[in-house]
Amino acid sequence: MTAYDELMKKIKDVDIISQIGSLLSWDQEVMMPPKAALLRAEQLAYLSSIRHEKMTDEKIGTLLERLEKDNNLDEIQIGNIRLIRNSYDKATKLPNDFVIELAKHRSMSMITWTEAREKDDFSIFRDDLKKMISLVRREADYLGYDEVRYDALLDNYESGLTVSKLDPLFRSLRNNVSPLVKLVVEEGEEPNMDWVKENKWSKAGQENLSHKVSEAIGFDFSAGRRDSSTHPFCGGPNPDDVRWTTRYSETEPFGSLYGSMHETGHGMYEQGRPRNLDFQPAGKANGLGIHESQSRLWENQIGRSLAFCEWSLPLWKENFSENMNEVKAEDLWRSVNMVQPSLIRTESDEATYNLHIMIRYEIEKQLISGEIEVDDLPNVWNEMYDKFLGIKVPNDSLGVLQDVHWSMGAFGYFPTYTLGNLYSAQLLSAAKKDLGDINKQIRDGNFSPLLEWMRNKVHSRGSIIEPSELIKEATGRMPSSDDFVQYLKNKINELYQIKIDIK
Amino acid sequence: MTAYDELMKKIKDVDIISQIGSLLSWDQEVMMPPKAALLRAEQLAYLSSIRHEKMTDEKIGTLLERLEKDNNLDEIQIGNIRLIRNSYDKATKLPNDFVIELAKHRSMSMITWTEAREKDDFSIFRDDLKKMISLVRREADYLGYDEVRYDALLDNYESGLTVSKLDPLFRSLRNNVSPLVKLVVEEGEEPNMDWVKENKWSKAGQENLSHKVSEAIGFDFSAGRRDSSTHPFCGGPNPDDVRWTTRYSETEPFGSLYGSMHETGHGMYEQGRPRNLDFQPAGKANGLGIHESQSRLWENQIGRSLAFCEWSLPLWKENFSENMNEVKAEDLWRSVNMVQPSLIRTESDEATYNLHIMIRYEIEKQLISGEIEVDDLPNVWNEMYDKFLGIKVPNDSLGVLQDVHWSMGAFGYFPTYTLGNLYSAQLLSAAKKDLGDINKQIRDGNFSPLLEWMRNKVHSRGSIIEPSELIKEATGRMPSSDDFVQYLKNKINELYQIKIDIK
Repeated sequence: MTAYDELMKKIKDVDIISQIGSLLSWDQEVMMPPKAALLRAEQLAYLSSIRHEKMTDEKIGTLLERLEKDNNLDEIQIGNIRLIRNSYDKATKLPNDFVIELAKHRSMSMITWTEAREKDDFSIFRDDLKKMISLVRREADYLGYDEVRYDALLDNYESGLTVSKLDPLFRSLRNNVSPLVKLVVEEGEEPNMDWVKENKWSKAGQENLSHKVSEAIGFDFSAGRRDSSTHPFCGGPNPDDVRWTTRYSETEPFGSLYGSMHETGHGMYEQGRPRNLDFQPAGKANGLGIHESQSRLWENQIGRSLAFCEWSLPLWKENFSENMNEVKAEDLWRSVNMVQPSLIRTESDEATYNLHIMIRYEIEKQLISGEIEVDDLPNVWNEMYDKFLGIKVPNDSLGVLQDVHWSMGAFGYFPTYTLGNLYSAQLLSAAKKDLGDINKQIRDGNFSPLLEWMRNKVHSRGSIIEPSELIKEATGRMPSSDDFVQYLKNKINELYQIKIDIK
Repeated sequence: MTAYDELMKKIKDVDIISQIGSLLSWDQEVMMPPKAALLRAEQLAYLSSIRHEKMTDEKIGTLLERLEKDNNLDEIQIGNIRLIRNSYDKATKLPNDFVIELAKHRSMSMITWTEAREKDDFSIFRDDLKKMISLVRREADYLGYDEVRYDALLDNYESGLTVSKLDPLFRSLRNNVSPLVKLVVEEGEEPNMDWVKENKWSKAGQENLSHKVSEAIGFDFSAGRRDSSTHPFCGGPNPDDVRWTTRYSETEPFGSLYGSMHETGHGMYEQGRPRNLDFQPAGKANGLGIHESQSRLWENQIGRSLAFCEWSLPLWKENFSENMNEVKAEDLWRSVNMVQPSLIRTESDEATYNLHIMIRYEIEKQLISGEIEVDDLPNVWNEMYDKFLGIKVPNDSLGVLQDVHWSMGAFGYFPTYTLGNLYSAQLLSAAKKDLGDINKQIRDGNFSPLLEWMRNKVHSRGSIIEPSELIKEATGRMPSSDDFVQYLKNKINELYQIKIDIK
């Protein structure tokens, strides 16, 4: 057996353990009875301990050193070795004591965060957040970085991501999108939402609509499932077994449909992974940013287009005949695109969403570098919401306490949401050049050319090259916010007939 | 750490791996999308390989040897050491090559068995069955036995079970039950089944009825689930997470309800295991016979009693008001107790069921000892069905090819079904002495005294002592067929008013 084969055999075990862990986690969210939580935690902890044991096997280090000197490797082998080196370093650089301390503090601070949010009292969470920040700073120091500490954390969620790459993207969003939103608020005419609010929306109808749409855009239900859960997500062990969830509200039907399209986007990416690279890191999806580009593509760029509303209207009418009698495709389109600055990130629209993220990014960066203190956090938060979204935050529960991420120590995660939006616009804009009249295809329910384009340019490329390189390979340019800003300007122009200077 | 603690720590890992495997197997039957089968097999094979690796750790052998000389152990410790020795020997006595050969041949012969059954052609399966028998003979020789080879196989499914223990039980059934069935066929009046056949039985109604009954008799749904699957079973990883399934037919409602009560019986046993013995072999359910006693108890002894039909009639009417208008508790009772010799074991009634098993037991015993040859099998089968059940077998698909067990090499499994029936009668008869008017309790829907009795005498005793010892401890007598035969005579007497000499 060659050194490379030996390495890949060891990594296959790690991958199978991860697959099993994914299934257990899915089950925990979707199927598990409540009393089973404690013993499920034992099962997951055991998997994570043997995964760690396998991943820190010194033999992997020896094999990596040997292979890193080998000049006869192909692109896939180089990708695998880069990714295994990354995982090996992450697993070995953090001392065991530190990993345990972080895990314990995570459990603790998720509890105080929950209490603080419920009681609307930031002070309950404050000290645990302070300690969490000092822990993630230590984490960054163990992992190492070239320029700023925060880079080490960003790299956890998208390989190679840095502040110097992100700053220009967020600057452009701040300068372009924030004024756009203000313009809509001041001059735009609100769409008529009466037909939505006045009706009841049956769960069965929403389930059927979501299922049909997911299938139509390309999800393979013989290699996956749809279920419901409190927190929608896409998981499952491997490309043959991709499981997404959604949730239903009887007072409005958009959450479940667009949530389903979002998770379907994630799911189709998983189903499209290169199958000759099963069990290999290079065969995996390429980080959170690219993943989010696939979900946002189908949810927003496609799902909220006029062409899609034209195609889907008959499906809506089939499932909600009484509610939809008078509704035209354009009404549907206006309703699913209402732009309105709001307090809560997860409920925000396409235009304002990235401003929510931009605020979090700026705050994280400065918290990690020490430019702002935890004690000042609520004030800083509220000032930024006023400045960039033009809204007053009435209390911390609806403000700085709304997201779970910081209590988990997940600093560096938020930016990948926005990267997803930028990548999706950049990818779609490149796809349009290759595919001709994409609006006609969508209106006809012919989604496969676009999916095939993504399969070829994105899905089948796994993680062979770094995310930003993949975007460059697929679109001809490094990641930028240009296409997204342009897309948003066009859309707002069409929706609100507001004269915007379109370059 | 003491030698005992060290041993138990190693065994805890093995147990957690088994828990995870149980969840994966449940998911495979109930949730998994079809394309996921291949990679699921990889996951399960991996779990089974690390389980084997952990279980054959030589250190376990050393610790066992040391502890087996220790005279200061309590009952639970002695039980754990006996059970771990048993598992260790089973895992180490079979050579690796043999385990692989057996697994491969199992896959192969399950395929030929399926084809043989579909085409009704025993010759397709014959050679693989011959080879399977020679393999299980070798298995028995590796495992070792005192009296006859078949004993080594019986011990796989119920610890300590032997031919010399089983022979008298089956002899008594053959002598007592076979004539009883003939009497019913010749003299009994068939119950009126028109109300069942003439109606349609909605799945939703059956689901609700099954759920309510399962909950009423004592299943804790906050520590378990109910789902549907093609082959009903009870599984799940641990007592906090017990998962049973049933299946529904719109043409008759008994299969789902009594199947649910059967699996609920298994499930309540699991939920009642001693929680101070989590992760320990002594805290496990005590083999297949005792397990089956708990399922059969609720399915048959309780579920098919007149008192239960009286209690459940309002629930039936609630869920099937139109179908049940004219039906009285006694009609229901007669319908769920119809005795009728039939070809298929899994569809047979309480009285004839054990004759199906007795036939399989006699055949297995003689196949393993070489007294009969595979070539003679269809003839032997058909003659026995004629002799003991009084029915002609029209073809091998409905005869010798009906069960999957032999193709899997599961020789020694069938007898535990009958042991379950005998144990359940013996346990109920002992419980009645302690509990007073149990029929009144059942009629009132007060199932907890009986469940509590089983919790104390059976469930909470785990596998601390051997199954037959447990029956003796709980009932004051070693396992016998007396109570079951008596129960059956009483019941047939009540149902058919046939004069039977009741001792």
